[in-house]
Amino acid sequence: MILDIALKHEVDNSYCVHIDALPALRFKGKVAIVTNPKVAGLHLAYLLSRLSSDECYVITVPDGEQHKSLQTVEYILDRLFEHRFNRKSLLIAFGGGVIGDMSGFAAGIYQRGIDFVQIPTTLLSQVDASVGGKTGINNRFGKNLVGLFHQPKAVYIDPHFLSTLPKREFAAGVAEIVKMAVTFDAAFFEWLETHELSDPEHLKTAIEKAVQTKASVVAQDEKERGLRAALNYGHTFGHVIENETAYTRYLHGETVAIGMVMANEVACALGMMTPHEAVRVKALLEHYGLPVTYGIKDVDAFYDAFFLDKKSNDRSITFIIPQSIGGVALRDDIDAALIKGVLARYGEA
Amino acid sequence: MILDIALKHEVDNSYCVHIDALPALRFKGKVAIVTNPKVAGLHLAYLLSRLSSDECYVITVPDGEQHKSLQTVEYILDRLFEHRFNRKSLLIAFGGGVIGDMSGFAAGIYQRGIDFVQIPTTLLSQVDASVGGKTGINNRFGKNLVGLFHQPKAVYIDPHFLSTLPKREFAAGVAEIVKMAVTFDAAFFEWLETHELSDPEHLKTAIEKAVQTKASVVAQDEKERGLRAALNYGHTFGHVIENETAYTRYLHGETVAIGMVMANEVACALGMMTPHEAVRVKALLEHYGLPVTYGIKDVDAFYDAFFLDKKSNDRSITFIIPQSIGGVALRDDIDAALIKGVLARYGEA
Repeated sequence: MILDIALKHEVDNSYCVHIDALPALRFKGKVAIVTNPKVAGLHLAYLLSRLSSDECYVITVPDGEQHKSLQTVEYILDRLFEHRFNRKSLLIAFGGGVIGDMSGFAAGIYQRGIDFVQIPTTLLSQVDASVGGKTGINNRFGKNLVGLFHQPKAVYIDPHFLSTLPKREFAAGVAEIVKMAVTFDAAFFEWLETHELSDPEHLKTAIEKAVQTKASVVAQDEKERGLRAALNYGHTFGHVIENETAYTRYLHGETVAIGMVMANEVACALGMMTPHEAVRVKALLEHYGLPVTYGIKDVDAFYDAFFLDKKSNDRSITFIIPQSIGGVALRDDIDAALIKGVLARYGEA
Repeated sequence: MILDIALKHEVDNSYCVHIDALPALRFKGKVAIVTNPKVAGLHLAYLLSRLSSDECYVITVPDGEQHKSLQTVEYILDRLFEHRFNRKSLLIAFGGGVIGDMSGFAAGIYQRGIDFVQIPTTLLSQVDASVGGKTGINNRFGKNLVGLFHQPKAVYIDPHFLSTLPKREFAAGVAEIVKMAVTFDAAFFEWLETHELSDPEHLKTAIEKAVQTKASVVAQDEKERGLRAALNYGHTFGHVIENETAYTRYLHGETVAIGMVMANEVACALGMMTPHEAVRVKALLEHYGLPVTYGIKDVDAFYDAFFLDKKSNDRSITFIIPQSIGGVALRDDIDAALIKGVLARYGEA
């Protein structure tokens, strides 16, 4: 006997992204704010002044990529169980990308899934990580290798939080803004070349533009079966660097900056992007003080690590390579020798 | 600025359940069979003789509910990373409900989700756990409290595997068959009263009937927003018993048997089920050697533990109570005193 289990239906994971001063938020039931000591110290009082709920708990986890682990997710889950959270309860991710990714993952697996809301406090998470529902953790094999797609119920982006952001973290966020422009919007890239993001008005415009790009890509390809992979421009190289340096030497956005420069060199070697375009991207990144080079100890080991990238399989690695500023291609046919040739230029000084 | 992320689309999680001798299975790419030493010893050679793939690995995890933990899931994930599984790779859950639930969970979060196939080897997992996509693990707070919905790509139910099943595990599977009949199908219940399941022909008929019932319920309510919760008949009580006895004293199906008897007593107290019907259900369970009673040490603590059930919230507990044989109601309005009155009858002898 063969039985069909018919499970075809419409799913609606839509939500709104608010880019403005945090509005008054009212939630029924239990709410847990997941944050870290730094963000809590700077901004928790402000958030609590905007928030009302039946019961509110604060779950504080350590700051940093090295704590984006299954152990920390388990810590969050345990607190939810202790406070007897149920399927109607809500998680609020209040912090940067690490907090958002772990809170979303915890919300996605707590009692097979509860709602969560993103209130990103870093530029990087405001323009990229908090929109799109990618959640997960790192492990010894690499970055974001365990997780799931779990869309937030809403995202509140308040540029006010950025006033306390260290310069280096600000620049890391700019790297992701540059990424959006190079991958999808040449006019936005030109605008970035001529507008200083230290100006709050320009910054808000750039955040809006970046989130619009992200929103449009995610709406077309929620689970990254094609187009959305383009947003990993710079990340294939960047993840290997992050892993090699144990998530401690660089910020995520910094490795994306280096990774974009590497991808552009591949693009130039393939005759896809012009050297002049590559120079313009590098100059914009350097203008914000981002790193654009990295000492590779072992080219073969670096190349080998690409195979653990989620876009790869046994035989091929998918690279996101710019066609030009404003457009990218997914390429799984690039000769290993060509890639290694580019990597070899990054030998340690 | 408020941006809409429009994520409304059709998803198709449909799949087939084959109830028959295991066909020849061919898979492209890498395959990992997750199993335990007992099942591997008895049946792995048979499975391997039916299976072809590019690369095949066997991941063996310890047997038993007490090992259905996040740690064991992490062990499975680590093996997949070591073997460099990618998004096109496949997991095969080969064993009982514990193996199926953990493999499905691991598949659901490995690189944000890869495919898995269920080949259940116990009666309980054949008639219930392997169909419907509920995956997860236990923790110190209770059973199946962490997990997600991740539907398998296919389910292969081969009654041949049951020939080696210990009597006690066989009976535990019968408990779930009885559950399907009491909740949804009075005619099937009457058939069960007059057909001995030790007869292989009758057994196959019962498996088909139970899976048909499950398939129809899951097709109507994949994520348990209503109807599907009815399949938790007996489980609200059963989970507390499992947790109190640290998952070691009883098999899951045995606690479901006790839980159904408890739920029936509540039904009788509410005037929903007749005492005669309750006696018939109990008699059928006893006929297969299933336990139908349990010594409750502390009625208040037992009641309190219901609040950790996934169907509960802070104020109310949802109980699945038979209206009669062949129909159930979800009730969140039952007086605590009435429930505790029933529980008090289970005081230790």
